Amino acid sequence: MDNNSLGELWLCEAYHQWGNCFKIKQILHSEQSLYQRIEVILNEKLGKILVLDGSVMFSEKDEFIYHEMIVHVPLCTHPEPKDILVVGGGDGGAVREILKHQEVANIKVVELDSRVIEVCKKFFPNMGKVWESPKVKVENIDGLEFIQKCSKNQFDIIIVDGIDPIGYGAHLFEEEFYYHANRLLKEKGIFVQQTESPFYHFEWVCKIFGKIKKFFHFIAIYTIPMPTYPSGWWCFTIASNSLSNITIPIEAKGKHISKMCKYYNLDVHKSSFKLPNFLLEKLK
Amino acid sequence: MDNNSLGELWLCEAYHQWGNCFKIKQILHSEQSLYQRIEVILNEKLGKILVLDGSVMFSEKDEFIYHEMIVHVPLCTHPEPKDILVVGGGDGGAVREILKHQEVANIKVVELDSRVIEVCKKFFPNMGKVWESPKVKVENIDGLEFIQKCSKNQFDIIIVDGIDPIGYGAHLFEEEFYYHANRLLKEKGIFVQQTESPFYHFEWVCKIFGKIKKFFHFIAIYTIPMPTYPSGWWCFTIASNSLSNITIPIEAKGKHISKMCKYYNLDVHKSSFKLPNFLLEKLK
Repeated sequence: MDNNSLGELWLCEAYHQWGNCFKIKQILHSEQSLYQRIEVILNEKLGKILVLDGSVMFSEKDEFIYHEMIVHVPLCTHPEPKDILVVGGGDGGAVREILKHQEVANIKVVELDSRVIEVCKKFFPNMGKVWESPKVKVENIDGLEFIQKCSKNQFDIIIVDGIDPIGYGAHLFEEEFYYHANRLLKEKGIFVQQTESPFYHFEWVCKIFGKIKKFFHFIAIYTIPMPTYPSGWWCFTIASNSLSNITIPIEAKGKHISKMCKYYNLDVHKSSFKLPNFLLEKLK
Repeated sequence: MDNNSLGELWLCEAYHQWGNCFKIKQILHSEQSLYQRIEVILNEKLGKILVLDGSVMFSEKDEFIYHEMIVHVPLCTHPEPKDILVVGGGDGGAVREILKHQEVANIKVVELDSRVIEVCKKFFPNMGKVWESPKVKVENIDGLEFIQKCSKNQFDIIIVDGIDPIGYGAHLFEEEFYYHANRLLKEKGIFVQQTESPFYHFEWVCKIFGKIKKFFHFIAIYTIPMPTYPSGWWCFTIASNSLSNITIPIEAKGKHISKMCKYYNLDVHKSSFKLPNFLLEKLK
């Protein structure tokens, strides 16, 4: 497609009467997969952007914040994470970060839509090359279906990445999913999920927190700045049944991993759990 | 103006190829003052929004984050702030927060554009009523002109609020301004300025930091989520010549003030100074 012919084409992601808008220099890819509309657009400041059903999944410029923080917070907290399950994460960003942890032996990625993986391999080779690692196994199946059939105590960490509580992944925010997630975790296992914006989706954040809390003894929320997501402020919810100190990193690990990161360090790890009053009040 | 006649009117603030967009339910006010275009628009989710020259200054829904953090961080760090200078701040939000500190005796507000004050008094009465306090004195004059004529050692805190480094306030980000700001501060005095987004205006943040550093022995950056500002992530730069612990709040004060706040508490105060690697590297 010719750049010039597009003129002033914009992507506007503004569900709640406001949101982000992105000038499109070029539409690099556009298809309807079995599950969703997959688009890759080019923006002059942010680089390539993956868009699923009109929602920005990540831009090349800021994806490091999200992927470093969804991975290194649980993995630097767990004493010895060997077996990791990633639900979603077909872009490869989370797997790229997990592979920085030498002690990890197996990474199981359950990505429903194989087209997401293929498109990302092509347009984001920096992220897509992780699939070559012998530690990584991919299955294209629904996340709930996968964990329903799994036997218990299999994983040290479960990461639910890049799925929104509306659309085809909505059931990954329901009690049945959390029941099974808990069942699949080994002793000291940690569950983490992206759980939307504390400002843009305040009600969702509180509701999801309440649901996860029913199945885990220890639960906490940590936040990050995420410039290309609505409101620029994002939540992760982390939980465990037997690891009480889910907000405290293992210092030596955090220090080591930080050397390979653009965002993550021990200080931001710890401070990301410090929440403002209006949020603390609701999560009491 | 009739709501229905506006249809799908949007405000788009997207300088760097991307940014925020806001659906306009109603344009409540629009004028050209001597210095800028002043607009008040209504958005269904965010409430009333003050817009100066096309830039969102604040929305009713999230202004508390910005105003609490630009004020309580310096005021809970200084042992006894009595005399405060606010440069800009014509909306009254910073003054509202300063007045929560009983020990403050005098608040001098230097706001060039008297129309900003008048418009805010009318449309944001919750913020505008602060002008009735006998502690508050307003002067409508340029910030640099004001501090040039001031004798030294007058203020405990100087807050530069709501002015951008482009447009008519650009000289408030130049060395001459910082020279005088430093001169005006008393022993233990603290200077704080909003210094744009660490992601959206990364180069500006580093450049301004370098300039302020020339005039103060102690300097630090702290950040906040600011949903309606471009990228949703914002910086303040804080500096002092004689107070070395500018990142450490006085616990009793912070705890007391936190009870009156929706965002601010001691934990977020301290954690707001913890910066990610990519920023630390540039500020070395």
